[in-house]
Amino acid sequence: MTSSTLFRRELQVLNVGPATFADDLRAQNAKVTQVNWKPVAGGNPELLRALLSLDEASIDRANEEALNRYLAGEPYLIDYRLAIDVIPGMEDHMLLHAGPPIEWERMCGPMKGAVMGAIIFEGWAKTPEEAAAYAASGKVKFAPCHEHDAVGPMAGVIAPHMVVSVFENRRFGNRAYCPVPEGMGGKLLRYGAYSQEVIDRLHWIQTEYLEVLRAALAESDGGIDTKSLQFQALHMGDEGHNRNKAGTSMFLRAIAPLMMKSGLAAEKVLPVYDFINGNDGFYLSISMPTSKVTLDPSNGVKGSSMVTAMARNGVDFGIRIAGLPGEWFTGPAQMVDGLYFPGYGDEDANPDMGDSSITETAGLGGFALSGAPAIVQLVGGSAAQGVEISKRMYEITIGENMNFSQPVLNFRGSPTGIDIRKVVETGILPKITTGSVHKLPGEGQIGAGITNPPLECFEKALLRFAEVYGR
Amino acid sequence: MTSSTLFRRELQVLNVGPATFADDLRAQNAKVTQVNWKPVAGGNPELLRALLSLDEASIDRANEEALNRYLAGEPYLIDYRLAIDVIPGMEDHMLLHAGPPIEWERMCGPMKGAVMGAIIFEGWAKTPEEAAAYAASGKVKFAPCHEHDAVGPMAGVIAPHMVVSVFENRRFGNRAYCPVPEGMGGKLLRYGAYSQEVIDRLHWIQTEYLEVLRAALAESDGGIDTKSLQFQALHMGDEGHNRNKAGTSMFLRAIAPLMMKSGLAAEKVLPVYDFINGNDGFYLSISMPTSKVTLDPSNGVKGSSMVTAMARNGVDFGIRIAGLPGEWFTGPAQMVDGLYFPGYGDEDANPDMGDSSITETAGLGGFALSGAPAIVQLVGGSAAQGVEISKRMYEITIGENMNFSQPVLNFRGSPTGIDIRKVVETGILPKITTGSVHKLPGEGQIGAGITNPPLECFEKALLRFAEVYGR
Repeated sequence: MTSSTLFRRELQVLNVGPATFADDLRAQNAKVTQVNWKPVAGGNPELLRALLSLDEASIDRANEEALNRYLAGEPYLIDYRLAIDVIPGMEDHMLLHAGPPIEWERMCGPMKGAVMGAIIFEGWAKTPEEAAAYAASGKVKFAPCHEHDAVGPMAGVIAPHMVVSVFENRRFGNRAYCPVPEGMGGKLLRYGAYSQEVIDRLHWIQTEYLEVLRAALAESDGGIDTKSLQFQALHMGDEGHNRNKAGTSMFLRAIAPLMMKSGLAAEKVLPVYDFINGNDGFYLSISMPTSKVTLDPSNGVKGSSMVTAMARNGVDFGIRIAGLPGEWFTGPAQMVDGLYFPGYGDEDANPDMGDSSITETAGLGGFALSGAPAIVQLVGGSAAQGVEISKRMYEITIGENMNFSQPVLNFRGSPTGIDIRKVVETGILPKITTGSVHKLPGEGQIGAGITNPPLECFEKALLRFAEVYGR
Repeated sequence: MTSSTLFRRELQVLNVGPATFADDLRAQNAKVTQVNWKPVAGGNPELLRALLSLDEASIDRANEEALNRYLAGEPYLIDYRLAIDVIPGMEDHMLLHAGPPIEWERMCGPMKGAVMGAIIFEGWAKTPEEAAAYAASGKVKFAPCHEHDAVGPMAGVIAPHMVVSVFENRRFGNRAYCPVPEGMGGKLLRYGAYSQEVIDRLHWIQTEYLEVLRAALAESDGGIDTKSLQFQALHMGDEGHNRNKAGTSMFLRAIAPLMMKSGLAAEKVLPVYDFINGNDGFYLSISMPTSKVTLDPSNGVKGSSMVTAMARNGVDFGIRIAGLPGEWFTGPAQMVDGLYFPGYGDEDANPDMGDSSITETAGLGGFALSGAPAIVQLVGGSAAQGVEISKRMYEITIGENMNFSQPVLNFRGSPTGIDIRKVVETGILPKITTGSVHKLPGEGQIGAGITNPPLECFEKALLRFAEVYGR
């Protein structure tokens, strides 16, 4: 029996590190458990030096301050206005766009289309050809939305006479702005469409939509508390980025009685109500500026390595850091990993685009995916995978956001406040739920899935951070 | 080594059946795995004979027919009317109540209070004392809501001049009726309150609420499709019994534009909109009659052992069976197992009450709990327990309802169509999420939790079923 016992004892190996050792052992019928240990910061000596140069305790304190500023925010939707009348630094012949800075020549197809549409809308040119020539002429000043307290979905183009929502953070007094969503489908400026119907819709928003929403908000008690809406929506299957049906519903519950109180005729109010009611994704235009207006007060917290923005222009992915205000750290925008609508494939897709990843920066989207099982199928996964994605994000974040509690995680607050140190140390990248957009202007959304920033953004940010704050 | 190997081999036992054997073995340090096997039908020979007397295949076919009738239903909210004008068989001096038949003398406190309130509301008596005497005088004809195509929450009292919603099943042409929810809190007729504010609110519903809702529904295209509302709400954290925030939101999204179109002044419409908007539980008054109007066409399917109603009057729990139309099978209403609001305890609680368990009968509530993680805390459990409760219900149901798909179960349809045979065979009882009500009239809700029918209902139903259909 002794020998048979010995014979039956299998070789069991715990392999830590490179998986090739495990593969070799498995080839010899050994039972191998692979531990996914990775060397810190990928073993890169420059990054390791940067990490070691930082005083952990003081950065932790700064991050706590940055996170607390964010958590203390009191976001309110207070108005809708023309961009030129409210956005700081907005000028005539200026166009804002999503993501980090980019010039006309380097823009992707959908962003170029959106710029052309905006030029036609503003009347700076009449035809698409003239608009493209005008964009290339140097007469247009381009700037990122983020540098003007704004955020824009997809191409994120904001022209001076477009309507934007106005959000105020009552705790800190700062404001943020976001374009009005044009609805669902392909023929939308945010996907780079510039046909007459697109321009007409923008003019309708500029007149009838603006009149009704301004009149409604004037009936509110200083605005609509959008933190409360978000809190509720996260218990109703939303994650605040790609699933916004509950948020849209809660917003409609809040705005409908204000519309009724406005004194405007039903014929005026109804088309605007129906316009919002017909777009379950409307609330993204609330969750994005809510995230922006609550994250911005953390910018400028000295010594904080917390990410305050993640944004993509369809070519570059850029991040901004609390302790390095005004700077961008960029790398190539990634493709979206998920499912395409029938008839589309990888060859049609543009890389990841838009400012909407401000929601993940705020602890929503991929960071709150556990609460949105109905969307995981759309992005190609299971409910259980959604929960795992959310849980993983605790490894790269500073704290937990009890305003965004997650019922399936026994009401644990969502992982919030991405720390560039933790991302570089672990190699775990923030997960972003997102739409996939066609690379040709105006074709629209062609799928949805999960994506992430390139690690490069975080590595560059860390090196610069160590340069400023390292010993 | 041989002996030491032997020495270390522990006794391992798999115990099937009575757990006392396992306990004895554990006392001797043996490792015992207890398998929760129970003898079929608790080993009761009478029930076993009843089960064996039934032709399985023909009953399965009948159940498929009964379930398909239910699944094919097309429920629409089409109107609000006075009960006397629409409920079949409703007479002056008749009061409908929740649950199986019960006379005044046997009614529980909250139901007595509601009856007294209804008598005062109708003007049959002026004071509570007069109302109680009137109720006992034999002048009032009592009948279950269910016997008049209606359902009522909690006490479920419907008086001739109260307002009820009118639901139509377009597929089969039958109708169902349900009282208008009075709001949240204690001073409500459904909890047995009969003070002046309760009566005043019922009069307000009879006049202003009725006018606005009728005018709004007249603007709809033949009514509001409530199956669609329910489908959506189940992907938004509702389970359709105790969590109805999403359903309420979706209903408001549908009714608000109809209110605007009605041509009524904002001063008329706004109080009614606010009344609904202020009650996240409003949608229970949609999910209950939607369940009733879609289940009723299964009544009368010969040979079907499917449950078509579960209802409680606060004293008795009663069920009705598709193949035994018009009959009730009852047992004692159970206590609610969950959490009490601060200051209340078991000694304050009335046994389980109301027709709202029609939602579980339809595959909602406890049967769809996997999709409502935000409510499990209220009923004293975890999200994982909610999922387990939903999953267990597949063992006692006939099929799966794809109109009620459950995202966290990878969109599997909710377990639907309770089969009395399976309940008796397995001893697994339907799980019902419910509110716990104070046993004194008008004190209101004092907690929430999970409850179930007594097994007795199903045993009695099975014996009668075998009497009618057995070989």
